[in-house]
Amino acid sequence: MTRREFVRWIGAGATGLTLAGCTRELGVSRAPKRDKRPNFVIIFADDLGYGDLACYGHPTICTPNLDRMATEGQRWTDFYVGASVCTPSRAALLTGRLPIRSGMCSDVRRVLFPDSSGGLPQSEITLAEALRPHGYTSACIGKWHLGHLPQYLPTSHGFDYYFGLPYSNDMDRVGGEGREAFKNPKVEYWNVPLMRNDQIIERPADQNTLTKRYTQEAVRFIERSKDWPFFLYLAHTMVHVPLFRSEQFRGKSPRGLYGDAVEEVDWSVGQILDTLRREGLGENTFVVFTSDNGPWLTFNLLGGSAGLLREGKGCTFEGGMREPCITWWPGTIRPAVVREIGCTMDLFTTIVKLAGGEVPADRIIDGLDLSPVVFASGRSPRKLVFFYRGRWLYAVRKGSFKAHFITQSGYGNDKPEPHDPPLLYNLDHDPSEKFDVAQYHPKVIADIQKEVAEHRRTLVPGEDQLAGRIKAG
Amino acid sequence: MTRREFVRWIGAGATGLTLAGCTRELGVSRAPKRDKRPNFVIIFADDLGYGDLACYGHPTICTPNLDRMATEGQRWTDFYVGASVCTPSRAALLTGRLPIRSGMCSDVRRVLFPDSSGGLPQSEITLAEALRPHGYTSACIGKWHLGHLPQYLPTSHGFDYYFGLPYSNDMDRVGGEGREAFKNPKVEYWNVPLMRNDQIIERPADQNTLTKRYTQEAVRFIERSKDWPFFLYLAHTMVHVPLFRSEQFRGKSPRGLYGDAVEEVDWSVGQILDTLRREGLGENTFVVFTSDNGPWLTFNLLGGSAGLLREGKGCTFEGGMREPCITWWPGTIRPAVVREIGCTMDLFTTIVKLAGGEVPADRIIDGLDLSPVVFASGRSPRKLVFFYRGRWLYAVRKGSFKAHFITQSGYGNDKPEPHDPPLLYNLDHDPSEKFDVAQYHPKVIADIQKEVAEHRRTLVPGEDQLAGRIKAG
Repeated sequence: MTRREFVRWIGAGATGLTLAGCTRELGVSRAPKRDKRPNFVIIFADDLGYGDLACYGHPTICTPNLDRMATEGQRWTDFYVGASVCTPSRAALLTGRLPIRSGMCSDVRRVLFPDSSGGLPQSEITLAEALRPHGYTSACIGKWHLGHLPQYLPTSHGFDYYFGLPYSNDMDRVGGEGREAFKNPKVEYWNVPLMRNDQIIERPADQNTLTKRYTQEAVRFIERSKDWPFFLYLAHTMVHVPLFRSEQFRGKSPRGLYGDAVEEVDWSVGQILDTLRREGLGENTFVVFTSDNGPWLTFNLLGGSAGLLREGKGCTFEGGMREPCITWWPGTIRPAVVREIGCTMDLFTTIVKLAGGEVPADRIIDGLDLSPVVFASGRSPRKLVFFYRGRWLYAVRKGSFKAHFITQSGYGNDKPEPHDPPLLYNLDHDPSEKFDVAQYHPKVIADIQKEVAEHRRTLVPGEDQLAGRIKAG
Repeated sequence: MTRREFVRWIGAGATGLTLAGCTRELGVSRAPKRDKRPNFVIIFADDLGYGDLACYGHPTICTPNLDRMATEGQRWTDFYVGASVCTPSRAALLTGRLPIRSGMCSDVRRVLFPDSSGGLPQSEITLAEALRPHGYTSACIGKWHLGHLPQYLPTSHGFDYYFGLPYSNDMDRVGGEGREAFKNPKVEYWNVPLMRNDQIIERPADQNTLTKRYTQEAVRFIERSKDWPFFLYLAHTMVHVPLFRSEQFRGKSPRGLYGDAVEEVDWSVGQILDTLRREGLGENTFVVFTSDNGPWLTFNLLGGSAGLLREGKGCTFEGGMREPCITWWPGTIRPAVVREIGCTMDLFTTIVKLAGGEVPADRIIDGLDLSPVVFASGRSPRKLVFFYRGRWLYAVRKGSFKAHFITQSGYGNDKPEPHDPPLLYNLDHDPSEKFDVAQYHPKVIADIQKEVAEHRRTLVPGEDQLAGRIKAG
């Protein structure tokens, strides 16, 4: 099978074939010589908290595969996402840009909904698109949430293959009673579509088997792609409510339903790494595990834990935007606990450069190249983190310090509370953001304010892509 | 040197001698054949929080030695102490008994003070005393806090050697301004004595070098004891306020002063394990690291973090009494994250049995033998944990559930708040004790109440040993 045939075949959504069947059918008896460019796998969990993995201190969630990945690779303590909710966070990851630039954030609606008319603009360059000229085949398996109309789907954004839900699994609600429905969730309560490429293949998606099927699709993609460099974006629907898990994980975790769902994602990670090892790709594949935003605390025990961090999903305290992050590439990544700052947008830049490319020069890319940390245990180039909520800059971290200009709970009824001078926390001393030290550090605040001014000077906010709705009728 | 000579020598506080010097002086050129009984080392930190080690999820405290110990041994997620403050917690560890039985708890004074007249009664059998008939040499190095009058000192309680502070390092306060003194602590503010056996050898103790000197003493004890089975109880004064650390650790940790102190304790653990390896004792020594109680939260950044657990030192929520615990015995302990329940009192029983002994039969011993977990990855015999505050039973854990009959903050001004029915938390689902599920589990509550009744049926509270004061003049 030539790469061209392969891309056409996978782009058409070839499925149900075993690898053997596939190669037989296409008359391939011998693999072409393997390209030396590394493969990339990003595994993205949904709503997973900073404190939800055993290797990040959770007492009752058992994550042996991620723990092992952390031991073999790097476990990051200060890794951030681009926003505290789903849609803008994913836009940041895949474009390497703050959502305010792409317009993938809004003060009207925090994420895209089934009646949304918008999505990631075609003018944005996704990681899949950036890798394509370098010979990469890309698959998006799992949750997309960057627009479900045809022009916004993964296959319209550089991915050769897509299998998953176009938005969150708690949307298209058609049954169950209020929040009670989440405690004993049934597939039929949420009429969410499962898609392959641009077609709906199942509705409602059987969410019980979603983690397992995503994993099978991912394994199959790796097995079939191994002769060309590939990018796999495996964005689990779990552990976003409603929580589902397959039969083998039912009642497995002492942590209950939430733990079951995390443990199935952990199992999935093990399957991916095992596949890479088995296919001889372990030493040529850069794998990253992280999540889109912090735990959805208002769901109580159905949400996760941010560990010692303050608050969770939806807000700009650390619990909302600092995530577990594990990087893995045996023989290349130097195993360590990394206490440097990194963020999902940096993955864009790091990966494009590893593929031999350069990031687009015609726009501002916020991602920085993390290679000095990942491959040489050096200092991270990232010193600044911008914490946006919707289209408002709420907080900025520079080095050890984080200034909150505005605070607001993730999902409470409180209004935004402005702070002048800003609240200031030393995150190294005080990762839980308990002790405001603004009065002792006016120079730090002035310096951060200068960074904000500089940031605003070059900022051209993108047009709001999340507010629009499909017209009825 | 015969064992008898050795014990006399070490009991007399032989010091300042290098190992080489010591053996030369005593004309020993060849070690006698090593006894096969295992050695025991208990390293006890002070006021260390559940969330304060990197391997328990802290982002900025760097504990590579404890992390390695955890990788090579067992890291416990549900390990408890016998009380949420120092004196009763230490009594529990060293006697295997709840402090209410020994009288080492009080509603008048929570711990012993320099003017206290009491201490651990002679009728109690310490771990050192229980091991002595089996040929063990024992040293207590560090903080004692079970009575500083001669009849209560370690050397009156079965230890052949003692080097350390007889009580907390924040006592005998003679200088500095209020809480400010803790922010920039000076040795002369606290006129605490440093003792060797029953003599004060330095006052005020130079707390800057305390962790280092404890470590040197411990290393020397191991080097000199290696020909006979030994028990080393290394009870660090750190990380109890006032925080001190030696020159090499000044400004080392991004976490600030508290982090420096933890990192020096971590260094100390590395020194102990290195010494055991170097002396060829690693595979014959059972080492346990834990702490006496949770973090002293009212000291803000000078106190630690309980991670995702609720509250800290002084109270009966999990943050007060659940501690990091790492067990190590290369080749014997099966490396694992242990999600079973254990407690410090169990160390008494486990160790006595490993030494070939039996626990005293003339009294109730609360400790259980953890061997099934430590050596065979089985289930822990411990299902019940009693949470006393002073002489009052505040809470009981049975299996996954914890019932709070009374709650009270660690160091707030609030009065004890009784609960009937008790608050009930499922700690497996809800380690942060956020969601009271009492209404759903009346049978669980009834069962725990039955356990309480059974516990009370056999309980003979010991006479209060902490309330008495030395008469003035």
